[in-house]
Amino acid sequence: MIARHFLTIAAVLALLGLALPAQAADDPLASWRDGKTKQTIISFVDKVTRKGGPDYVPPGERIATFDNDGTLWSEQPMYVQLFFALDRLKEMAPRHPEWKKIPAVQAALAGDLPKLAKLGHKGILKIVGLTHAGLTSQQMQALAKTWLSAARNPKKDMLFAQMIYQPMVELLAYLRAHGFKTFIVSGGGVDFIRAFSRSAYGVPPYQVIGSSLKGKFQLKGGKAEVIRLPEINSIDDGPGKPQNIALQIGLRPIMAVGNSDGDLAMLQYTASGPGPRLMMLLHHDDAAREFAYDRKSHIGRLDKGLDLARQNGWTLISMKNDFAQVFPACRK
Amino acid sequence: MIARHFLTIAAVLALLGLALPAQAADDPLASWRDGKTKQTIISFVDKVTRKGGPDYVPPGERIATFDNDGTLWSEQPMYVQLFFALDRLKEMAPRHPEWKKIPAVQAALAGDLPKLAKLGHKGILKIVGLTHAGLTSQQMQALAKTWLSAARNPKKDMLFAQMIYQPMVELLAYLRAHGFKTFIVSGGGVDFIRAFSRSAYGVPPYQVIGSSLKGKFQLKGGKAEVIRLPEINSIDDGPGKPQNIALQIGLRPIMAVGNSDGDLAMLQYTASGPGPRLMMLLHHDDAAREFAYDRKSHIGRLDKGLDLARQNGWTLISMKNDFAQVFPACRK
Repeated sequence: MIARHFLTIAAVLALLGLALPAQAADDPLASWRDGKTKQTIISFVDKVTRKGGPDYVPPGERIATFDNDGTLWSEQPMYVQLFFALDRLKEMAPRHPEWKKIPAVQAALAGDLPKLAKLGHKGILKIVGLTHAGLTSQQMQALAKTWLSAARNPKKDMLFAQMIYQPMVELLAYLRAHGFKTFIVSGGGVDFIRAFSRSAYGVPPYQVIGSSLKGKFQLKGGKAEVIRLPEINSIDDGPGKPQNIALQIGLRPIMAVGNSDGDLAMLQYTASGPGPRLMMLLHHDDAAREFAYDRKSHIGRLDKGLDLARQNGWTLISMKNDFAQVFPACRK
Repeated sequence: MIARHFLTIAAVLALLGLALPAQAADDPLASWRDGKTKQTIISFVDKVTRKGGPDYVPPGERIATFDNDGTLWSEQPMYVQLFFALDRLKEMAPRHPEWKKIPAVQAALAGDLPKLAKLGHKGILKIVGLTHAGLTSQQMQALAKTWLSAARNPKKDMLFAQMIYQPMVELLAYLRAHGFKTFIVSGGGVDFIRAFSRSAYGVPPYQVIGSSLKGKFQLKGGKAEVIRLPEINSIDDGPGKPQNIALQIGLRPIMAVGNSDGDLAMLQYTASGPGPRLMMLLHHDDAAREFAYDRKSHIGRLDKGLDLARQNGWTLISMKNDFAQVFPACRK
């Protein structure tokens, strides 16, 4: 009834030459402010889905890849997964005196976040390797899920799990409603992301690509498991992103969204195919509602990307101007 | 109208206590003969999809993994991909005299198929590595597609592409119609399989896991590509199968289908989860319609698997008895 009523009003306004505000209740991109960015998204999707049009892309090839940290949720003051790994590290370290020699562990136990940040995804993976070796994918996902249900961002007094970007959640759903397959391609650990990708973003575990440890099949007492070794399999950052896309998706994305220089190779790979393409970078320019950082940040540095976006005509999303709302209004 | 008419007849027969033959036009598993195997499939799917039932599995977790060579299509007298690689090798070898020292190349150029078969997936990957290095996923898929449109099996005088198993095509579609996600997990090269997985089996490229070469991102003249290096990334056989399932799917399958000892680790991994599970091995016992081989074959050896199937109560599919029809009746 409400939908029908709304349509009637919309029809009347249309006859009068007026438009409803985009934030209207049935706008699938209601958290995006009207403007160039939102229009770019809508006309791209329109082009590639218009049957018989010159830019039509069949549904099976509508691949969109999204970075996670800083693109779908907050990554400041430090990657969420690092907070998770630190909590595990503190718990496990007393039983492992040999870990004290490792720089990432030293920084972590000393609470030296800037130093840890400098170690980047490699530093995280070192700690993840130590604290998650011997676990299965399922165990890792379960641990992360439990931790995420209570862990809070120290700067914002919100649950980490609450600090996902509502406009991006809407964008993912909008794309899927138009026949896209949405993938996460993140420098973060693949099973950590899988713990919440479905509930937070509607992205199933098998559409998550991330950094990973090597796995080892073992059969004990008739029960088969794959356990993680403390050995890096892949760092899904920079050139690792398109490499893993080619390996695991096997199709070139027609759309890619990131927020840092670690996403540029993915955007370049996406841009290099024929036909219409949409490359976007989220610019964190909103200190009031989230964080403001770019060229000089240790986490999620966006430096070359700012220049490349201008040179190549990629869309720079301004959190301040383009997001009508940053986080979901109400989340359990 | 036809469907409605058919339903009426079915209803009448049901009232009379009679049943239509399973091969009837609207049976989604028409190419499976009635019997224990078909019944096992139907009751498994029934159990896991019955809402509120004790064995219900939500759609997002209904993961089924299928081997390809010998499970979805014929693998005799030699893996199809090896015929493809040999054709490329013959074409390229004159320009690469240094290749002559390599055992797999020697066997290939001498036409010594039994020796090549003994080298297994590793031998194939060596030749694939040589003949496909420097190609992108897309180029590899395009080459394979072209080749498959004309290449014929030397033993059966059929197109290789025609030698897919109609009952398995139906089974994949039946599972998807019941909310399953169907994956191919094959020892074959991932991009070779992607060339036909969608058209032959309805499985999209991003649901194909296979053996792979390492990829390298490169940017040349502003165009970004990922090219294959002549270096093995993963051999998706034996323990490699569950390892890659954990890495790329992130969920334990509830159903797995294979045909050789290289699939046992995948079946054991599948069997080790809680709740209902379906593990199946296709037994090639039909020399008249396809091929008959098991314990002593170099290609697709099924030796331990025959014993494990009996010990563990896994379903052994008899091609001879369970397949009403082997290949699709009519394929362009």
